[in-house]
Amino acid sequence: MLQPPGADSAGEFGRIDRYLKPLAAGFPGALGLTDDAAVFGIPPDRELVITTDALVAGVHFLPDDPPADIAAKLLRVNLSDLAAMAAEPLAYSLVTSLPTDIGDGWLAAFAAGLAEDQKRYGIHLMGGDSVSTPGPVTLSVTAFGLVPRGQALRRGTAGAGDLVFVSGTIGDAVLGLRVLQGKLNAADPDPLIERYRRPQPRLSLVPTLRRFATAGLDVSDGLVADLAHLCEVSGYAATINADRVPLSTATRAAVTADPTLLATALTGGDDYEIVFTVKPEDREALLASGADVTEIGRLSPDGATGTVTVLDGTGAAMPLTARGWTHF
Amino acid sequence: MLQPPGADSAGEFGRIDRYLKPLAAGFPGALGLTDDAAVFGIPPDRELVITTDALVAGVHFLPDDPPADIAAKLLRVNLSDLAAMAAEPLAYSLVTSLPTDIGDGWLAAFAAGLAEDQKRYGIHLMGGDSVSTPGPVTLSVTAFGLVPRGQALRRGTAGAGDLVFVSGTIGDAVLGLRVLQGKLNAADPDPLIERYRRPQPRLSLVPTLRRFATAGLDVSDGLVADLAHLCEVSGYAATINADRVPLSTATRAAVTADPTLLATALTGGDDYEIVFTVKPEDREALLASGADVTEIGRLSPDGATGTVTVLDGTGAAMPLTARGWTHF
Repeated sequence: MLQPPGADSAGEFGRIDRYLKPLAAGFPGALGLTDDAAVFGIPPDRELVITTDALVAGVHFLPDDPPADIAAKLLRVNLSDLAAMAAEPLAYSLVTSLPTDIGDGWLAAFAAGLAEDQKRYGIHLMGGDSVSTPGPVTLSVTAFGLVPRGQALRRGTAGAGDLVFVSGTIGDAVLGLRVLQGKLNAADPDPLIERYRRPQPRLSLVPTLRRFATAGLDVSDGLVADLAHLCEVSGYAATINADRVPLSTATRAAVTADPTLLATALTGGDDYEIVFTVKPEDREALLASGADVTEIGRLSPDGATGTVTVLDGTGAAMPLTARGWTHF
Repeated sequence: MLQPPGADSAGEFGRIDRYLKPLAAGFPGALGLTDDAAVFGIPPDRELVITTDALVAGVHFLPDDPPADIAAKLLRVNLSDLAAMAAEPLAYSLVTSLPTDIGDGWLAAFAAGLAEDQKRYGIHLMGGDSVSTPGPVTLSVTAFGLVPRGQALRRGTAGAGDLVFVSGTIGDAVLGLRVLQGKLNAADPDPLIERYRRPQPRLSLVPTLRRFATAGLDVSDGLVADLAHLCEVSGYAATINADRVPLSTATRAAVTADPTLLATALTGGDDYEIVFTVKPEDREALLASGADVTEIGRLSPDGATGTVTVLDGTGAAMPLTARGWTHF
């Protein structure tokens, strides 16, 4: 493609070659990144699951965040979407829009972060594009996963009376962000910051989801908002108990010190846990499976479609919206 | 994902819904854009071909270019890559990084441009992401195509003595850009500008490529540079005759008025034609097929791998590099 005279696309190709080509070595369909496209087949009993998430410096991460953390976040938010669809990771493509003055050190650390997560999650680079920009670092990943035909987990397939479960713990990431922003003085800040910087895609939950889940999605916008998405597409309302929402030790300590942080935890987002629904008759088998999941509520055909009611310890509805406390 | 308070992601979702969701109506695997990912299978006798190209305002297009032209360019540069791999278009995903102050009029015109080309090329939106940016409009498309197993056209599979063909005409787009930049006063500027703004992916050439081509790629960096890419991966050198390179009436007129523009045409890029190689014994059948292609040269095992020699009308090598004239 035509570049302005200053763009030095020959030099750019050289840097991309050096740092990104090695990441494609493990996926034959990448064709070594020598061609215009990647080429691969999939087994006839499988479907492809394809998801894309983009991150912009100053919007989704801080410009001086460590490049390896940015790489981890970029890959993992996409892997979380694959997990939420009950898919296994296959490969990913990467688009980098980088300022021309970005240093080799940044690129090397970014590529090293990708390489580490490729190994951790068994995924490989298979293509993409690298362009220069006069704006902020802009990154996007399209992740490809495989799922047995007909077994992709959807949002709109929950049933009336299904129980609501969530994996792991909720609220750590948003409190970690508050700490980084200087807005929260937490007693135990490190695990919170780590959860914000390094989401943990729940790929280990995929067999459990395939066996038990009737619908689900990952918690990126916030537990209440994402459960509301599920309810809206499935055509139900949900009620959850705030006391049953699993909190980490660090988040529980923060909420004990400042109870208003409970609403922050339930609505903050960036958790990358999976919220999903299960038929009541499968409850015991799911709990006996040993999966790290917690029952937090139930769907109902009553109530306005797409609404989530959060009950406090006394059984009263908390004045909570998808964005936090309601202030009258 | 967490957004800064000013990002108004709820409003952003609303706009995306309004303008982009209708574009996904024709592809069941898009799941109506309600889920975290697209899901689809492919026939067992087919392979997927996947390519990604990104465009940045101020780098790859002018910020005040008509939004429908930007949409057309974004889709078509990707469709050109599919054509170059001898694949048929299936679907695409779209990542938009847009300034928060971009108007609904821009979005509507952009979506209308996508809709028009979806109809023209039989392709549908199947997913993606939409984020806000403090920087310039940044767009990327990942296009998905299908090809019979083992029939994807590669760059590195040409043979010694293979003939070099190119589709359509070369040089129009770069001269169109020169006109837009005020650097060229062409006698017949409109077809040149149109070629620059609206690339024509050579999808109609796919059956011809599957039947005859031994290797190929699309001409985006420039005819000489892209043929050099093919030579480098295939392990040969190439010689082409400048007089045989097909030029449109408008470009021929410009070159007649200023012969130095011949080098510009051969090296400028953005042609989105296909340069490909053919076994000598297939030459007659290809020419008899009626495909809009022209023989321009030949590969040779002699000469430095990856080099392209361009001969002028007298048979002398033109002092030409992949970037234009060599100046001593």
